[in-house]
Amino acid sequence: MSDPSLPVIAVHGGAGALDDPGTSGLGPDAPRCEGVGRAASAAWDLLRRGGSALDAVVLAASMLEDDPTFNAGTGATLTATGHVELDASLMDGATLAAGGVACVKDVKNPVLLARAVLESSGHVLLVGEGASGFARESGIPPWPNDRLITPHQQARYEAARGREPAKIGGGTIGAVARDVRGHVAAATSTGGTFLKRPGRVGDSPLIGAGTYADDRLAAVSATGDGERIIQVTLARLVAGLVGAGRSAPEAAAEGIRVLGDRVGGRGGVIVVGPSGEAGFAFNTPAMARAWSDAAGAIRTAL
Amino acid sequence: MSDPSLPVIAVHGGAGALDDPGTSGLGPDAPRCEGVGRAASAAWDLLRRGGSALDAVVLAASMLEDDPTFNAGTGATLTATGHVELDASLMDGATLAAGGVACVKDVKNPVLLARAVLESSGHVLLVGEGASGFARESGIPPWPNDRLITPHQQARYEAARGREPAKIGGGTIGAVARDVRGHVAAATSTGGTFLKRPGRVGDSPLIGAGTYADDRLAAVSATGDGERIIQVTLARLVAGLVGAGRSAPEAAAEGIRVLGDRVGGRGGVIVVGPSGEAGFAFNTPAMARAWSDAAGAIRTAL
Repeated sequence: MSDPSLPVIAVHGGAGALDDPGTSGLGPDAPRCEGVGRAASAAWDLLRRGGSALDAVVLAASMLEDDPTFNAGTGATLTATGHVELDASLMDGATLAAGGVACVKDVKNPVLLARAVLESSGHVLLVGEGASGFARESGIPPWPNDRLITPHQQARYEAARGREPAKIGGGTIGAVARDVRGHVAAATSTGGTFLKRPGRVGDSPLIGAGTYADDRLAAVSATGDGERIIQVTLARLVAGLVGAGRSAPEAAAEGIRVLGDRVGGRGGVIVVGPSGEAGFAFNTPAMARAWSDAAGAIRTAL
Repeated sequence: MSDPSLPVIAVHGGAGALDDPGTSGLGPDAPRCEGVGRAASAAWDLLRRGGSALDAVVLAASMLEDDPTFNAGTGATLTATGHVELDASLMDGATLAAGGVACVKDVKNPVLLARAVLESSGHVLLVGEGASGFARESGIPPWPNDRLITPHQQARYEAARGREPAKIGGGTIGAVARDVRGHVAAATSTGGTFLKRPGRVGDSPLIGAGTYADDRLAAVSATGDGERIIQVTLARLVAGLVGAGRSAPEAAAEGIRVLGDRVGGRGGVIVVGPSGEAGFAFNTPAMARAWSDAAGAIRTAL
């Protein structure tokens, strides 16, 4: 059993292949493992100082957005037309307040815009130019689309342009946390599938699909085959299983089993319940992840 | 108990006030009751001839989109900038296939575009100009935005422009059906909230929020306070309650209780389970609705 007074953080850097582009190595020294470890450490420090679960998942997600290794924020995969279109969402389990943005091209950290949507828009989901307009009203400065594009992703696009879109995102990032007051929160951010159709929205910005948090259930962030995750409302499904009495690891495993069996989907999920128990599951070859263990140490795995 | 060989249709024309704009009277002769009755009758005839649940909900939803009485398709409410932005989704309980579109300005029947997304896009949700581009590729012709605007809605906009957006849509339409083979389906379509911010997406186009269908659970369409419906993933919640053994009326009532108690939301829901039992619930003053009874007659209520 975990110490109920100890905060908990769990972070993922996307479910996909072991040799995801952007990774120069494998094992715990891989850039993806380093990235999720750094984000988890920073978020855990915040939680230990009494920070809220919502602040912790926003911090972790924004760090992963800024890390060019991951398919979110800077370093996102390009669309069929060679641009970056970003999606993100977050949810506060204490209040069920939620915010999301989709198809945003001119914001450096979409999870910060999603938080502004949660806090001051009166809405839950804003998309496209409407979301950009709200960013400006909220004091979030414009950020050039080409500054979100890394040389690696540009080269990958040039080599593949005109080909079929990738079937799996492979690099969505997410975080779930429980704070010292027992509240949970979740956040998810992505550039979507490589060579996606502009205007395509996957699971990451959708409450219940890529992200869900409810103190009575659990906090969940999903990654993988976005369309399949939407069809089974994966984040809400896994949170509901914890609420029905399953352990967090059991709920994660059952959610991924449903994803595979019902709709043939591939992906992964991270979950933390109100008791502080964390769980992971994925049916892809790898999912970069980091979490705080029962002793408060940050562990990473691919 | 309902006859398991008898198909079932249930349709709603939005949860809101008794005196919703667009209604010239109250009671069963009100235009809203006539409209939902016509749509339910046409869909039920299709089901009796062996048509699929998915075809039936698309037929009902497209008729309600074309009926200027309802806030969907032609007759939709206007945004803060005086345009129409349409959202719709549908889901096939037999396969869990789903499609949705949001913030579409140049399509006469967004539910038909959502069906094209389901059938041939490889995606579940397309928004904005990306959705319009897919419409053109799919052979759905452009439709001028001003042809979606009725004189009534234009006058309402002129009288109210600059005021705060409405808190509740009040006119979302939806349909759920079970066909003679026992499959269920759901569809939902809306113009969203009056004077909404462009780019705002409510529950209607979101799988799990406004729409859900799974032959193992139920088919559900929701209406009302979209942001609150998203927070509790209302359609998926009600479908799950039927799957857990609740009757369709009980599940509908419990879903609306959760909507009100957890997040202070107002709205309504229609549901049909795989046994053919239909249920309704709403915590607004009225919800225009029509359904086929156990004898196969179409009944309407406000």
